[in-house]
Amino acid sequence: MPIALSPTVEFESAVPSTNRAFVLHGVEDVRFEERPVPSELGSLEVIVAPKKTGLCGSDAHYLSHGSIGDYVLTSPMILGHESAGIVVKVGSAVTSLAPGDRVAMEPGESCRMCYSCKDGHYNRCPSMAFAATPPFDGTLAGFYKLPADMCYPLSHAVSLEEGALIEPLAVGVMAVTTIGQMPLGANVVVFGAGPVGLLTMAAAKALGARHVLAVDIQEPRLEFAKQYAASDYFVPTRTVEGETRLAYSRRQADEIKARFNYAERGPQGVDLIIDCTGAEICVQTALYLLKHGGTYVQVGMGTDSLTIPISTVLNKELTVKGSFRYGPGIYTQAIDLVSRGLIDLKPLITHRYAFVDAAKAFAANRAGKGEDGRALIKAVIDGPLA
Amino acid sequence: MPIALSPTVEFESAVPSTNRAFVLHGVEDVRFEERPVPSELGSLEVIVAPKKTGLCGSDAHYLSHGSIGDYVLTSPMILGHESAGIVVKVGSAVTSLAPGDRVAMEPGESCRMCYSCKDGHYNRCPSMAFAATPPFDGTLAGFYKLPADMCYPLSHAVSLEEGALIEPLAVGVMAVTTIGQMPLGANVVVFGAGPVGLLTMAAAKALGARHVLAVDIQEPRLEFAKQYAASDYFVPTRTVEGETRLAYSRRQADEIKARFNYAERGPQGVDLIIDCTGAEICVQTALYLLKHGGTYVQVGMGTDSLTIPISTVLNKELTVKGSFRYGPGIYTQAIDLVSRGLIDLKPLITHRYAFVDAAKAFAANRAGKGEDGRALIKAVIDGPLA
Amino acid sequence: MPIALSPTVEFESAVPSTNRAFVLHGVEDVRFEERPVPSELGSLEVIVAPKKTGLCGSDAHYLSHGSIGDYVLTSPMILGHESAGIVVKVGSAVTSLAPGDRVAMEPGESCRMCYSCKDGHYNRCPSMAFAATPPFDGTLAGFYKLPADMCYPLSHAVSLEEGALIEPLAVGVMAVTTIGQMPLGANVVVFGAGPVGLLTMAAAKALGARHVLAVDIQEPRLEFAKQYAASDYFVPTRTVEGETRLAYSRRQADEIKARFNYAERGPQGVDLIIDCTGAEICVQTALYLLKHGGTYVQVGMGTDSLTIPISTVLNKELTVKGSFRYGPGIYTQAIDLVSRGLIDLKPLITHRYAFVDAAKAFAANRAGKGEDGRALIKAVIDGPLA
Amino acid sequence: MPIALSPTVEFESAVPSTNRAFVLHGVEDVRFEERPVPSELGSLEVIVAPKKTGLCGSDAHYLSHGSIGDYVLTSPMILGHESAGIVVKVGSAVTSLAPGDRVAMEPGESCRMCYSCKDGHYNRCPSMAFAATPPFDGTLAGFYKLPADMCYPLSHAVSLEEGALIEPLAVGVMAVTTIGQMPLGANVVVFGAGPVGLLTMAAAKALGARHVLAVDIQEPRLEFAKQYAASDYFVPTRTVEGETRLAYSRRQADEIKARFNYAERGPQGVDLIIDCTGAEICVQTALYLLKHGGTYVQVGMGTDSLTIPISTVLNKELTVKGSFRYGPGIYTQAIDLVSRGLIDLKPLITHRYAFVDAAKAFAANRAGKGEDGRALIKAVIDGPLA
Repeated sequence: MPIALSPTVEFESAVPSTNRAFVLHGVEDVRFEERPVPSELGSLEVIVAPKKTGLCGSDAHYLSHGSIGDYVLTSPMILGHESAGIVVKVGSAVTSLAPGDRVAMEPGESCRMCYSCKDGHYNRCPSMAFAATPPFDGTLAGFYKLPADMCYPLSHAVSLEEGALIEPLAVGVMAVTTIGQMPLGANVVVFGAGPVGLLTMAAAKALGARHVLAVDIQEPRLEFAKQYAASDYFVPTRTVEGETRLAYSRRQADEIKARFNYAERGPQGVDLIIDCTGAEICVQTALYLLKHGGTYVQVGMGTDSLTIPISTVLNKELTVKGSFRYGPGIYTQAIDLVSRGLIDLKPLITHRYAFVDAAKAFAANRAGKGEDGRALIKAVIDGPLA
Repeated sequence: MPIALSPTVEFESAVPSTNRAFVLHGVEDVRFEERPVPSELGSLEVIVAPKKTGLCGSDAHYLSHGSIGDYVLTSPMILGHESAGIVVKVGSAVTSLAPGDRVAMEPGESCRMCYSCKDGHYNRCPSMAFAATPPFDGTLAGFYKLPADMCYPLSHAVSLEEGALIEPLAVGVMAVTTIGQMPLGANVVVFGAGPVGLLTMAAAKALGARHVLAVDIQEPRLEFAKQYAASDYFVPTRTVEGETRLAYSRRQADEIKARFNYAERGPQGVDLIIDCTGAEICVQTALYLLKHGGTYVQVGMGTDSLTIPISTVLNKELTVKGSFRYGPGIYTQAIDLVSRGLIDLKPLITHRYAFVDAAKAFAANRAGKGEDGRALIKAVIDGPLA
Repeated sequence: MPIALSPTVEFESAVPSTNRAFVLHGVEDVRFEERPVPSELGSLEVIVAPKKTGLCGSDAHYLSHGSIGDYVLTSPMILGHESAGIVVKVGSAVTSLAPGDRVAMEPGESCRMCYSCKDGHYNRCPSMAFAATPPFDGTLAGFYKLPADMCYPLSHAVSLEEGALIEPLAVGVMAVTTIGQMPLGANVVVFGAGPVGLLTMAAAKALGARHVLAVDIQEPRLEFAKQYAASDYFVPTRTVEGETRLAYSRRQADEIKARFNYAERGPQGVDLIIDCTGAEICVQTALYLLKHGGTYVQVGMGTDSLTIPISTVLNKELTVKGSFRYGPGIYTQAIDLVSRGLIDLKPLITHRYAFVDAAKAFAANRAGKGEDGRALIKAVIDGPLA
Repeated sequence: MPIALSPTVEFESAVPSTNRAFVLHGVEDVRFEERPVPSELGSLEVIVAPKKTGLCGSDAHYLSHGSIGDYVLTSPMILGHESAGIVVKVGSAVTSLAPGDRVAMEPGESCRMCYSCKDGHYNRCPSMAFAATPPFDGTLAGFYKLPADMCYPLSHAVSLEEGALIEPLAVGVMAVTTIGQMPLGANVVVFGAGPVGLLTMAAAKALGARHVLAVDIQEPRLEFAKQYAASDYFVPTRTVEGETRLAYSRRQADEIKARFNYAERGPQGVDLIIDCTGAEICVQTALYLLKHGGTYVQVGMGTDSLTIPISTVLNKELTVKGSFRYGPGIYTQAIDLVSRGLIDLKPLITHRYAFVDAAKAFAANRAGKGEDGRALIKAVIDGPLA
């Protein structure tokens, strides 16, 4: 019987008996708490001690708002979902992992039974249990239990810190590959030069994009993007008084086309645009900018609704798609790109915090810079057992 | 040398020497005029005498507004582009056609040289010369010259009247196939039960859709749709006071889901929605209605921009596409569906006019009914030589 | 925790305490035996009493050879895998089924953990436990245990007998859809008019093929095919002395092209050929017959290797694919086609046997006809509890 | 009227009045001849003076056999089709080119009217006029006339010598992209380390392959391949006495899997294999080597037919495709890869010949080395006007 229905096993004495966690209780209310050490382990499950956890905008959003869209905090929840760690215990049927293994953790467990799961779209599973999405606990704790096949071993070329950033990189790889179906040798534009935008640019470049243009309103971020992964960048100009949003967006698109010699059709046009902002002006500009037959991918979550130039979608036969987290094979591909040196995650990690200073990491994330005054791209927090 | 660079040929005496045309001179200003008989013929060109021409919303729009979007009438233009006729003369290198052949006419000639043309997307050709789109003359005349490969022979099972309706049918076939990539056995919803909507439903059904739902605000049109090609229909309910457009649209989608047992995922969900209205509420309702991973196709041209629930596109990983006219193979496929009896075009032709009564056809189209008081779906006008 | 790790449940008294089975012990050695009634049930598992089981060529092959390819019988194995039955017990977490439900049974259980399973190709799972494939027991028994999501409820429009034939129909639907990617309105040719070939023709027709041509060497089977689902048929001609196999195949292809006016390119060409024979001459003829850019799908298992005209594959840019069993969504789609009346399974069931006469069913299958002398297409055997 | 039907123009005095050509008259019979200077020019045509022409295996094959497959020399034919040159005259409607422009020449002109041309598969055009394929003259002459859109301007970063090699590179890019649909980050294996094999490896690497393995029986060629574009290489081992071809091929595949840790499924498996040899053993080994669901592309033309392990195609659900020359966008993409420095063509050009020494180039190509004794990869011959 392939699906594990095995008897449970008692948790062994080798594992520490404390499980400290960073728990969100409500808006602006986080506390350090002692949680029970996981005491039962399915035959195909493992327990990992998270060692490094990247701080994500969604963690910060739960802290300041207590919800994201339909996901509302109703009971205390451990934060954190961008993590890598060390395996401390494996279920009786696990053969691919052993205690001591360094792994990146894919933090969303799907049901494996529903149509979406069986069809290769487990990210669409309605029963998805995703770390740090209410009501599911996250990874900022001493231990985290997950199925063995969601732990991805890291070679020695990849540090645990980098392993933690596989999660946001996976978001970018998904948008570029499975959803965006980036043509080989494509011209790509990415809106937003925050962590996910930067990693999307890096993924596009590493996977063979011909040209990657970064667009953002903060020039310092763009300067970083250009050093990091973008071929070039564009800073939107000021609005003209009386100009509508659509007119402004169209003008931005025209300026980008002129500046970078993008054609309306064929290989010199923009094949793929990935938006990591969620801002209406970015979406509009992107649709005006794409070549005929081009593809737009929405990654950034912003406003619930926005205005698009539908006639442009029609006349240019555009494709507009949403990309939600990541699906089969994406973690593997993301790790491979890092292992082969095609993507360097280290420059993104600008700030590091001990577990006891987790709250400081959130404060720095909110401020956009650390206590040191330097611009923050990605803060990484140690696990309590680090 | 494959591309014809042959000497021109003199037009033969067998062809009548008059070429009466129905010409738009400006807003609400149409006139019957005598135009020159085509006197030169390329080696791969043919001259067709249009015998039946369907009246399309775009013809009517030019009459009442003088423009559609960026296309503005600046000089007199013959109207009409949904036509079938009889070949009267063929160029020296034409072997597939002969005078007397009954043909459906594909009325848009592309350059064949640009990237879009060579890449199998001739409908995106920037040099497209499309009948009755300024500045190109249409088909409501005694003669129309076009390349031989844009004339599609009609079997005796298909009348010239039906041949004229291949053009709007092609729009529906394009949306269902090349653009919509309708899965075999799909659940399909079509918004709008006008001629293009009806033909889109017919195409979806004939090509194997499992269920085709028609949505429109006019119940009589839906009754016709259900008799004609739809599996069932839905009439949107009234708005509730204070309800936003998006809230209304979401409520409509929920009602449709409940009524027709559509699932959020998998084969019981809505795979494909094609909008033939261009109305914002339809687009919104469609996006709320689609299953995860479903596809939305915009065919109807309405407002230039509109508001969409972008978070729904993202969370359900939807695909939104524009479908513009028709491309390679579509005419052939449309004619085949009619020839095999899988689509019956005859019920759509509710009104017929002699060439001299062309203005009456436009008036009836505007009124939505003929002088006989019966609802008008499609009016067909005879050619002057009919 | 989405994956069930629940305690097991004791088997209830309501279930009969005997479990009679039809067991293959070796070449030409089948026996009726009493097997243990399943006594443990996972939380997401169900127990079904198979009521009708179709006899498949693979069952017969194991009986006469003891093996198929790499699959070798090494211990006694219950035969049968084309089954429908009635649910007799459901696991504690099963909500979609209840005892008494009539279901078609998908008889291959995959691991759900491996890359292929997560990627939407569970049919490629290396840990697949497939009924009546050594060492896994089949369904010709009183009870069969399987996961709830592999039981597909049948509407009252579909009999249990028809439900048993969903399995071979699924093979045809897979070849036409997921693998063959049949274009809408395609010209399709199917080689082999046995049960799987007939069901492949039925699937192609029901899903919108424009024309379905059946090819076989037995004209009576073709006559049946034409009455059943094929648009027309072709009987290969005799070989000419001294003619090579490839020359013969090319000649057959040329005759078919001439007879049915198939073009080398475009919509009048053969889009898709599905081979349900595994015979070298069929593969060769098919490759010569396809239009440029066409697709060939191998379903029939015959010889391990064979000679193909590779220059034809190259010059016509053909696609050659293998189709192995069926994957996500196929059972659902197959049942839907039957429920909607687009495919009628009843005419295929030519012979019926009580469980105690199972051996007679195998004998008739081997003879190609029953004791009544009538040609056998599909024999269905009752379950022991029927 | 988009298609040019313009009057012809007289050829200007600026163009030299001699047109020396290298003409094949029969097996082993080539002669230098004076051909007429092109005297008519269509409005969208240009005349190019070829400056550099790569020698291809097909040219050599016509010299030694007088035919390739169905293409048979029946009248004298100018050889050469891998060329770059300088535009000397443009037709009246040409705006994208001017005399003096350096261009790579795409040497196959299609009809632009047939279904294949309009559908984006002009390489399948039955009326294709391809240089140095009987009866069409090639490019080893003073002048060559072709449509403007088949001339691709070269930036100063790309020499004419490199421009001549765009043609064989295009073959590799086609196999990797349009036909092979190489997944982003794929594991690729290329059989054959001759010019086309090397360029296929280069294309795969430049477009983002994760790993490119070269297989050939000549280790020096593989050493070059590894320095040039391959990640690694494999030399087939000797056959074992009594071993069948298929058994040998399977053993080779197993050795490659073991050596390079290729998995049967998922991202660690071989995604794409491109054969540039046409040898039966290579095809067989490739099919055994591919992962489940992998793709095999035939580029090399060898024997007309060969034996394949069809059960492996079926059981692993492989895709086998033919790739014939190149289609829309391929030349542009090939030039772009060279312009951006992602592919370096220079190392392949090992030998250079003046036009008067063209016969020596053919001799060296046949010997596999020049008079200098060095191994020959690609010989380039000057045009007569160089």
